[in-house]
Amino acid sequence: MDDLLERLHSFRDRRDWAQFHTPKDLAISVIVEAGELLEVFQWQPADAPIDPSNVRKIADEAADVLIYLLLLADRVGFDLLSAASNKVDENELRFPETQTFGVAKPPKAT
Amino acid sequence: MDDLLERLHSFRDRRDWAQFHTPKDLAISVIVEAGELLEVFQWQPADAPIDPSNVRKIADEAADVLIYLLLLADRVGFDLLSAASNKVDENELRFPETQTFGVAKPPKAT
Amino acid sequence: MDDLLERLHSFRDRRDWAQFHTPKDLAISVIVEAGELLEVFQWQPADAPIDPSNVRKIADEAADVLIYLLLLADRVGFDLLSAASNKVDENELRFPETQTFGVAKPPKAT
Amino acid sequence: MDDLLERLHSFRDRRDWAQFHTPKDLAISVIVEAGELLEVFQWQPADAPIDPSNVRKIADEAADVLIYLLLLADRVGFDLLSAASNKVDENELRFPETQTFGVAKPPKAT
Repeated sequence: MDDLLERLHSFRDRRDWAQFHTPKDLAISVIVEAGELLEVFQWQPADAPIDPSNVRKIADEAADVLIYLLLLADRVGFDLLSAASNKVDENELRFPETQTFGVAKPPKAT
Repeated sequence: MDDLLERLHSFRDRRDWAQFHTPKDLAISVIVEAGELLEVFQWQPADAPIDPSNVRKIADEAADVLIYLLLLADRVGFDLLSAASNKVDENELRFPETQTFGVAKPPKAT
Repeated sequence: MDDLLERLHSFRDRRDWAQFHTPKDLAISVIVEAGELLEVFQWQPADAPIDPSNVRKIADEAADVLIYLLLLADRVGFDLLSAASNKVDENELRFPETQTFGVAKPPKAT
Repeated sequence: MDDLLERLHSFRDRRDWAQFHTPKDLAISVIVEAGELLEVFQWQPADAPIDPSNVRKIADEAADVLIYLLLLADRVGFDLLSAASNKVDENELRFPETQTFGVAKPPKAT
């Protein structure tokens, strides 16, 4: 992840693009790419096997989401992996196993 | 990232949630969380300083996006970091420095 | 639709909110609300009957999407209903019946 | 709006597409199109004048959002315009003028 961020910095700076990368614009790009990712699944049954040609497309679009997410975290000033790890800690408390086992959308404990 | 994925597997399996995690439903969750992330910036000027209390909120929502993205990559069967690294390689070709320097939204070379 | 737009203008102007309603910010609000709409269906089977309490929630979120869409069209200067009608005209040409009958995601004719 | 819905029914039925139009899949299409709409504004300053060629693009994408929104409301069984009108009623209560005048993102009264 650190290597990836370093490559993104280099890519961005050689094009003088940091000026466009406000946190708000990066958050916009995250969702625009998330829309392109979801589009691959549009009108498909949830249990449809994934066409091999689509695996590449999904990987490409998921990559774009990660790239903008990482640039956003870097710009706002937090570590994305630590944030995700903290979130898992919180979710362990919010979704107690005994109350959520096999439940698709459990209410969150607070 | 590998540690995070391992934690997510454990979290998911102790709740028997793998049954809900189709690629399509994970892609839906990616964009739902991306919407919550973007909401933090709704109606804010792009150059507004970020309120410290919002940094935590942004980190939390970005974490959710990463979590579902990682589960999706794992389910579909590709490595998310490699996919992102490949994407940077491609973008180096699609956006030549000389044609994109300082240009907000350059047309893509193909 | 004209009545609705008139009510939205009045609502907006009595709060002096037109200053925040740039086309870009309205497009952001469209997708933020579309995310809240989609969240109602998160982790649900596509063929699940809709819980009556969710019909109200869906109507509320769909209403928010329409509201921002209408404000956006008004701000940018086009008629939303005419645009949709034109789109149906175009789609008749892009998706010829004989080639798209019963096909979930047909390639678009151009 | 009624005319538009009638045209959408005819378009859909001549292609036998009602089978794909689950509420969940329609909600997915709403956000996929909302992403294409937002993409037009990606990396643009909020106060940038809109290029005339982009007005057509914005109208086209907004039209797609409306089309899926209308099909969703029809499928779930509520009237989209009434839902929007009810929402304005609610917002009048949730956002009292005196507390929200000129405030970009007021807390909601409950």
